[in-house]
Amino acid sequence: MNHIIDETHDPAHTSWVPGADDHAEFPIQNLPLGIFSNGADPRGGIAIGDQILDLAALAQSGLLEGSALEAAVAASGPTLNPLLALGPEPRRALRRAVSTLLSDPGEQDVVSHCVHPAAACTLHLPATVGDYTDFYVGIHHATNVGKVFRPDNPLLPNYKYVPIGYHGRASSVRVSGTPLVRPLGQLKAPDAETPVRAPTRRLDFELEMGVWIGTGNALGETIPIAGAADHVAGLSLLNDWSARDIQAWEYQPLGPFLAKNFLTTVSPWIVTAEALAPFRTAQPGRPEGDPAPLPYLLDADDQASGAFAITLEVSLSSEAMRAAGMAPVRLSRSAATHMYWTIAQMVTHHASNGCDLRPGDLLGTGTISAPARDGFGSLLELTRAGAEPITLPTGELRSFLEDGDELTLAGRAEATGYRSIGFGPCTGVVLPATSA
Amino acid sequence: MNHIIDETHDPAHTSWVPGADDHAEFPIQNLPLGIFSNGADPRGGIAIGDQILDLAALAQSGLLEGSALEAAVAASGPTLNPLLALGPEPRRALRRAVSTLLSDPGEQDVVSHCVHPAAACTLHLPATVGDYTDFYVGIHHATNVGKVFRPDNPLLPNYKYVPIGYHGRASSVRVSGTPLVRPLGQLKAPDAETPVRAPTRRLDFELEMGVWIGTGNALGETIPIAGAADHVAGLSLLNDWSARDIQAWEYQPLGPFLAKNFLTTVSPWIVTAEALAPFRTAQPGRPEGDPAPLPYLLDADDQASGAFAITLEVSLSSEAMRAAGMAPVRLSRSAATHMYWTIAQMVTHHASNGCDLRPGDLLGTGTISAPARDGFGSLLELTRAGAEPITLPTGELRSFLEDGDELTLAGRAEATGYRSIGFGPCTGVVLPATSA
Repeated sequence: MNHIIDETHDPAHTSWVPGADDHAEFPIQNLPLGIFSNGADPRGGIAIGDQILDLAALAQSGLLEGSALEAAVAASGPTLNPLLALGPEPRRALRRAVSTLLSDPGEQDVVSHCVHPAAACTLHLPATVGDYTDFYVGIHHATNVGKVFRPDNPLLPNYKYVPIGYHGRASSVRVSGTPLVRPLGQLKAPDAETPVRAPTRRLDFELEMGVWIGTGNALGETIPIAGAADHVAGLSLLNDWSARDIQAWEYQPLGPFLAKNFLTTVSPWIVTAEALAPFRTAQPGRPEGDPAPLPYLLDADDQASGAFAITLEVSLSSEAMRAAGMAPVRLSRSAATHMYWTIAQMVTHHASNGCDLRPGDLLGTGTISAPARDGFGSLLELTRAGAEPITLPTGELRSFLEDGDELTLAGRAEATGYRSIGFGPCTGVVLPATSA
Repeated sequence: MNHIIDETHDPAHTSWVPGADDHAEFPIQNLPLGIFSNGADPRGGIAIGDQILDLAALAQSGLLEGSALEAAVAASGPTLNPLLALGPEPRRALRRAVSTLLSDPGEQDVVSHCVHPAAACTLHLPATVGDYTDFYVGIHHATNVGKVFRPDNPLLPNYKYVPIGYHGRASSVRVSGTPLVRPLGQLKAPDAETPVRAPTRRLDFELEMGVWIGTGNALGETIPIAGAADHVAGLSLLNDWSARDIQAWEYQPLGPFLAKNFLTTVSPWIVTAEALAPFRTAQPGRPEGDPAPLPYLLDADDQASGAFAITLEVSLSSEAMRAAGMAPVRLSRSAATHMYWTIAQMVTHHASNGCDLRPGDLLGTGTISAPARDGFGSLLELTRAGAEPITLPTGELRSFLEDGDELTLAGRAEATGYRSIGFGPCTGVVLPATSA
């Protein structure tokens, strides 16, 4: 279902929206879903070039019918949860209808009344997140971090059997652009007798992708691996901001808590499973000697096309860099193919005990690091826990994030013969800690 | 604010509702808040004896005014979140008004039209849980469990500084009476090479209290300890069902996940902070030699009256016991005073990094075990991880829960000079695993 490649993916397909065909991220082949406002109430929209197609207006235009209309009506409110709940079929019908409307010059006069300049709009979180779960499927990250926290035992014995995950905090998920107030927490230096409460000194980012759940499952039921992809509405970028010093002191025995729940940032657009169909690729083979997944996690189709050819980049600009008019510097370049488990395996594992997933639930992949240092997905890895700071173009050093730093994630799906598509920014600036 | 004791707590105060004055849990001194339905849409209610006062009907009766009316209107919908968001003042005004209406015989004719027999009603989850966080403040439990998982290192060095907590799953929180389908998961015997997928063999309960958050805090802001109690709307009983074999294999390094998120059961009523005022008691002194809490967690008032004199009981009946007409057998008797950290400390710590709490968020205390074995709050502790099974009245042995077992938590607030109040049941029956 989600793998269907049709004329909406044709790289020769063009749009009458000015600039859309040259847009780096949102050509007509993308059509990602989000929530925007421009004075009026927040409602669903689709990015096309530098414009946003208003789905509430489109639903009332008389231009849609059938399940495409049903989808647009479901997207007319302040969150996309009702649309996500409909599952892939109406979403695909809406994509096909919108693709035609934005391409056919004969529709321009009518449809252009439903289109707003993105620069004049505010973007919101695309869905109300019922539960946010963060996985740990980036095996190079798991190994790198394991070396910091457990030098003798970096990758635990369960890693190659269990798609490790834990519950995150839904309340503090925010859309790109939300500033990060440096959190306070209990910090305990290795040689100190007791902890102190202070602003974190080891503020970090984590380069992740976010997975938006479409249709869910009832409590007590499971999601078999063969149908798991149909429960995935689409992907975003996700920055799992982390305070490493808080984490080191608090995380035993029940896992990260205040080290992670002060903010999680997602890019504003859900790049749909339909848009990503051409970029599906084989799951990289497990290294020689690794165990096969248990049967409930094993599906030939999933292994053959369960990964995504998405390159991921992290860039940073300090306050001094911006004052000097310098461009952001790239810290890292990785790819979504560096995941040990597929998204389908994450979904199936999550529901394998009967835990109910709901439309709009958000899964983080965990940090996606490439094997080599220039592709590491966190400062903890890039600076070897602060031991080898990065030098910025201003000469400033960075072990961890400093106040004023602006951190941006970017993602790009690329495949031979197809138009590349992007995700929009996932960005945030670090503000100083407030007292208390 | 939440500590005020007034005429609503007078043990001589009586109600015209038949049987209410003799009711073990819901005399007029309690007045807990919940959501019920009896054919019509779910809406807010207050338990009084064996009856439920319909807050939607009361809001329309003309009998209320001012902030009491505001509270009843907020409680007229399908969840109590809007009421919880109002904070303690309107909740207290409603309590005082309802206490008068249910006591004054002159009001009986009118108010009795707003009262329904509880036996004819269905009880629902009192609020939509935005986020569920489970703490670990029962120090005897933490020590007992630590011995099982880490014999050499039962209580980690952070325990007496950090109110340890982790994020749980909000989607699978259900009201008392919801059956538990035995979950499947990855199990790995200590001497096995590889895990297998099978129904859990070590299904357990955990005796906890649930804390319902009233007013929340904005992202990036904290909740100082002196005002933390005002953010607590009330308490319920909470059973954190756990699969110990899944837990042992999955929990490193990021904490419990599928071992805990298949179901969390709460009792239906929020026993309000106002109702619990007479039962506040001094936080037990820390053992000689323990460190003082860091200043942000230390408040003299909280230490003086931040604990609650609530006794807690666990009982079990097997299918065979019920078939033989036997009463449930008590497994354990503990008390809410066996918490190392107060509820105010849990709330303040949770928001201490700027994490936003929202009305209707649910905090679990963690398992509250008494120091001695007859007060342990889980089978893991009661049977020493299955090594010393319990004998039921039928002669059946229990290491962990078996299919057909019905497990019930009960709680009772007691203090000299005051009418005892209860929480209603927190119960669930274990159903066999389904395949898949």
